[in-house]
Amino acid sequence: MIVVMNPESSPEQIEDVKSAVIKQGYTPRPVPGTQGQWIGIIGEKPIRGRRHFESLSGVKQVVEISSPFKLASREWRQQDTIISVGDARIGGDRVVFIAGPCSVENLEQTLSVAKIVQAAGASLLRGGAYKPRTSPYSFQGLGLEGLKILRQAGDATGLPIVTEVMDTETVGLVEEYADMLQVGSRNMQNFSLLKKVGKSKKPILLKRGLAATVQETLLAAEYILNAGNEKVVLCERGVRTVSDHTRFTLDVSAIPAIQRLSHLPVIVDPSHAAGKRQSVLPLALAGVAAGAQGVMVEVHPDPAKALSDGPQQLLPDDFQNLVEQVRKVALAIGRKA
Amino acid sequence: MIVVMNPESSPEQIEDVKSAVIKQGYTPRPVPGTQGQWIGIIGEKPIRGRRHFESLSGVKQVVEISSPFKLASREWRQQDTIISVGDARIGGDRVVFIAGPCSVENLEQTLSVAKIVQAAGASLLRGGAYKPRTSPYSFQGLGLEGLKILRQAGDATGLPIVTEVMDTETVGLVEEYADMLQVGSRNMQNFSLLKKVGKSKKPILLKRGLAATVQETLLAAEYILNAGNEKVVLCERGVRTVSDHTRFTLDVSAIPAIQRLSHLPVIVDPSHAAGKRQSVLPLALAGVAAGAQGVMVEVHPDPAKALSDGPQQLLPDDFQNLVEQVRKVALAIGRKA
Amino acid sequence: MIVVMNPESSPEQIEDVKSAVIKQGYTPRPVPGTQGQWIGIIGEKPIRGRRHFESLSGVKQVVEISSPFKLASREWRQQDTIISVGDARIGGDRVVFIAGPCSVENLEQTLSVAKIVQAAGASLLRGGAYKPRTSPYSFQGLGLEGLKILRQAGDATGLPIVTEVMDTETVGLVEEYADMLQVGSRNMQNFSLLKKVGKSKKPILLKRGLAATVQETLLAAEYILNAGNEKVVLCERGVRTVSDHTRFTLDVSAIPAIQRLSHLPVIVDPSHAAGKRQSVLPLALAGVAAGAQGVMVEVHPDPAKALSDGPQQLLPDDFQNLVEQVRKVALAIGRKA
Amino acid sequence: MIVVMNPESSPEQIEDVKSAVIKQGYTPRPVPGTQGQWIGIIGEKPIRGRRHFESLSGVKQVVEISSPFKLASREWRQQDTIISVGDARIGGDRVVFIAGPCSVENLEQTLSVAKIVQAAGASLLRGGAYKPRTSPYSFQGLGLEGLKILRQAGDATGLPIVTEVMDTETVGLVEEYADMLQVGSRNMQNFSLLKKVGKSKKPILLKRGLAATVQETLLAAEYILNAGNEKVVLCERGVRTVSDHTRFTLDVSAIPAIQRLSHLPVIVDPSHAAGKRQSVLPLALAGVAAGAQGVMVEVHPDPAKALSDGPQQLLPDDFQNLVEQVRKVALAIGRKA
Repeated sequence: MIVVMNPESSPEQIEDVKSAVIKQGYTPRPVPGTQGQWIGIIGEKPIRGRRHFESLSGVKQVVEISSPFKLASREWRQQDTIISVGDARIGGDRVVFIAGPCSVENLEQTLSVAKIVQAAGASLLRGGAYKPRTSPYSFQGLGLEGLKILRQAGDATGLPIVTEVMDTETVGLVEEYADMLQVGSRNMQNFSLLKKVGKSKKPILLKRGLAATVQETLLAAEYILNAGNEKVVLCERGVRTVSDHTRFTLDVSAIPAIQRLSHLPVIVDPSHAAGKRQSVLPLALAGVAAGAQGVMVEVHPDPAKALSDGPQQLLPDDFQNLVEQVRKVALAIGRKA
Repeated sequence: MIVVMNPESSPEQIEDVKSAVIKQGYTPRPVPGTQGQWIGIIGEKPIRGRRHFESLSGVKQVVEISSPFKLASREWRQQDTIISVGDARIGGDRVVFIAGPCSVENLEQTLSVAKIVQAAGASLLRGGAYKPRTSPYSFQGLGLEGLKILRQAGDATGLPIVTEVMDTETVGLVEEYADMLQVGSRNMQNFSLLKKVGKSKKPILLKRGLAATVQETLLAAEYILNAGNEKVVLCERGVRTVSDHTRFTLDVSAIPAIQRLSHLPVIVDPSHAAGKRQSVLPLALAGVAAGAQGVMVEVHPDPAKALSDGPQQLLPDDFQNLVEQVRKVALAIGRKA
Repeated sequence: MIVVMNPESSPEQIEDVKSAVIKQGYTPRPVPGTQGQWIGIIGEKPIRGRRHFESLSGVKQVVEISSPFKLASREWRQQDTIISVGDARIGGDRVVFIAGPCSVENLEQTLSVAKIVQAAGASLLRGGAYKPRTSPYSFQGLGLEGLKILRQAGDATGLPIVTEVMDTETVGLVEEYADMLQVGSRNMQNFSLLKKVGKSKKPILLKRGLAATVQETLLAAEYILNAGNEKVVLCERGVRTVSDHTRFTLDVSAIPAIQRLSHLPVIVDPSHAAGKRQSVLPLALAGVAAGAQGVMVEVHPDPAKALSDGPQQLLPDDFQNLVEQVRKVALAIGRKA
Repeated sequence: MIVVMNPESSPEQIEDVKSAVIKQGYTPRPVPGTQGQWIGIIGEKPIRGRRHFESLSGVKQVVEISSPFKLASREWRQQDTIISVGDARIGGDRVVFIAGPCSVENLEQTLSVAKIVQAAGASLLRGGAYKPRTSPYSFQGLGLEGLKILRQAGDATGLPIVTEVMDTETVGLVEEYADMLQVGSRNMQNFSLLKKVGKSKKPILLKRGLAATVQETLLAAEYILNAGNEKVVLCERGVRTVSDHTRFTLDVSAIPAIQRLSHLPVIVDPSHAAGKRQSVLPLALAGVAAGAQGVMVEVHPDPAKALSDGPQQLLPDDFQNLVEQVRKVALAIGRKA
């Protein structure tokens, strides 16, 4: 619920409303982009007392937030949220590129990819140190060593780095090294992890679960926002369907759907949906044409030797070509890229 | 299986190979784009005798078609097939627009929409006379009267018309009035209908079934091709998934997947996938960015009064805007539009 | 909408209400099991005039049918419908067995299977003469010859026969030979076919579409009922999901769901869901435990040589065992078998 | 890979083979039910050296485990695993009942339900203290207080208790109070949690993910087994599909599929699949008919007042009836119950 004060309301009136909110057991919050004249109320229970608040002096109107997510909703914040990660800005009418290897394998590989993707136009470096793998016998990532390598590659190039955090216990460690924390698809409803990264000061990249609805995805974001971290970027990466020609079906319609419902930025990850190199480019173009504010792809100098997901990682030249093509499409629909 | 003759093979050698094919119980067919020097063999059973054919004089090599669909495969025909419908050409590097009302309701409505979509850039007029409706109590279309109205609108504007045919019994009737016959999603595996339209001289617009794989879709096309009609355009229109923010999930990845496997043109229908007007534009852009060779949308002068699918039909101005935006994206990826 | 007359209402009052119904443009119909005192109204448009009907003399109350299907609903008919096919009865608290080969291959095979399944407890013989096959190059069934063989096997054993009809054109032919017509999953929304078999006097076995909801399935049945044929048996045979260990996921929950919403009988087809022999028995048991009023399975004397679906056809002994086990489960939950 | 020693092989030969295993970088493990004569080898990389092992003296044969999961496979252990939780035994030909409230709300409610379900035949008490909720504004469970209440109810009745653990951080705490730890569907691929509970001495109840394949489910179990905990019970609770008449589609075919592939026990949770009370009984019966070795349901003395999932919780009488009916079906298929 949002209490909209009259523009000419006095500081005392605002204070009185805040006190009334507290008295009812809720916490008043500033509503973004409203210079403090609007007062937001979020609570566990459905908010009662609409009439009561409307009757207070200085109050212009009371707006209920109809969606089950509140802080993530367009009603709560009407303008697009723009999130800074190092020098990169994600959101609004930009299209950013996030690229890097699936797994951090060693310093040489990571540094080499970092330089390649930076030269080609990437604004952030991605790479997996802790890897969620279906089988316990698959390569599980280098862990702390991977974080250190990634940090070195980030420092050497100046690119901010984003990497996955898989559990509450390592959030502190990953925060120390990374500029942005990724919560993977399989953890999208790991609510303890969502609450934990919600306490972080670092921005979060939250990937849609592989059978999650748009509403569930926004409620997962709401867990993070509600815990205090307002810097959430969403990522469409494909859902599991009856289509068997790609690993997952990239649901490009989720992008405009999220943008209508929420102020948070949305990017697209065509690599995991495609599952094979040749499908990455058309899916990247489709995602951006549908409105994605960024593209995250996997790049490897020698995919055949990759320790994970070799078949879907782009070659350096593929990535260069992808950036050029995506930029053309972005410009065609009035985006900056 | 394809028998590739030496370029310098004699007409007699070619005839000998054809006789050998017939002797084995198959039918020899010319392979498209090969000036008759290549001989195709299609049969119910796996083709045996590869060695035998290789040993015949004048034969350069024998190529097996690995996919379960043969005539629809890229191996059978390497260049893109381009299909003519009246003055329109579908396929290759063009992006065409097919537009019109969901249902033909009366002459005035149909003619008005025809003129609007033609002025905005459509090359074909679509409209439903026989309507497949989930409930027997919903409007079932005007039938023959609808066909006549559509024909009048086509003649008045010069636009070729495409309309759905729902059963074997009415194929003859629909052929009489329409320039292109549509087989709908719910009939994609109505094999009797596929065989029947395979005997038609009119081009066919075959929509992917709502839970069909790409392979099943190409095998449905193969039914038509195998019955003798080579003029098939495929249409991606969304599959049923766990996503509930659109009626169907537009599977844009099916477009490049089909284009890799097949020489047939593929267009995109964002209206049925979206289920609501506001999602049609981003899905059309995404489809074309992924490589679709056409866009088919529903347009109505007054959607609120439409007899079917009102919420997803575009207003005339929306369609004008869609054509302009789609053309920009098409040009950005090197297509003509 | 159902107009419930007072038990003591006069024939004249009933006639007056019927006239009022006709006057409003609807057709009055007797409501099953009500000795003609209740008057049903079904129409294309939402029925208006509830108040008007309530005000007529002799009327006790007016009940709206809330579901989109009317004649198929429990509101329209409260008792279970029981459908006779030859000597077999399907519906109520019975559990019947329908068995036979996937495809009719020749008289010897068909007759042999017919005798085997009859001896083991089957009440109906199934077998495909017209086969819906994904590929045009797969065996398409023996057609008319298959119908004749099936009829012979039916006559020789006294078992009523059920076989699939694939298009409007052959309905007449199939009706001539078969005791019950099957509409397959791929044709569940072939509305022309539904209307056509709705004109038949033979009972219909309607299989749920492979991505159809329960509501869509009941609306498909409604097409048949509305066209005049009240003898419809539904069949759950699995839907397409992300599970890949069976061909389709048998949705046993659809059985009680349909039985709550509709008076029509529901049977289960575990063969097509399983896709392999070893899963047929547990799925048959599960279906009956969930309330299915019959089990339809494929049986072949030598599955390895079957012309279609060999891996899922039961051996004669498997079928004998299945009947015994299913009967035990049926008795355990209070059914007759 | 399993190295099968000759029955008469000497202890020295066995030691030699173990040394050879270690030399190749793997860890030798005893294979269950083989009195130590068989030596199992599990490793991150595909095991090479089959020939080498076959050539060692005392070796009878070398068996590769074809499935990607090893310790969970039937090849690794041929007999059904039976898991003890307090006095309860899960697995083999028993059918056990696990019941209790969705959420632990207070001592009175929990104790009351515990006594009711015990009297009706339950062998374990379930109840949620940490609740995974889609919205951050929904009741999140009583946490530690809930654990204490559950422990009290367990002690008062003698029933072992099972409750969900949501993150690595609270595993220690939950272990202190519970007899069995549940890993929920949304955490089925929370690999850090799987590894952590794999270090626990308590048995684990692992629920299938809502879009997980059977193979992914068994690989999730493999994470736990590989970390050292061999006491894993699997639970089928429905997958997300296009069916919309239940919350999830209970995939009963997964039960026999898992039992063919694995020696681990599998139970069924009809409450979460159903989403409503009336569907719980038929799904429980179907699950047991398909071979489930247990049924877990939610019971509440006053579901209308439940703090979570009210509509799907059974009334005490419903549960009594369910136990009776399930037992009849279990006996009908030769199980003990």
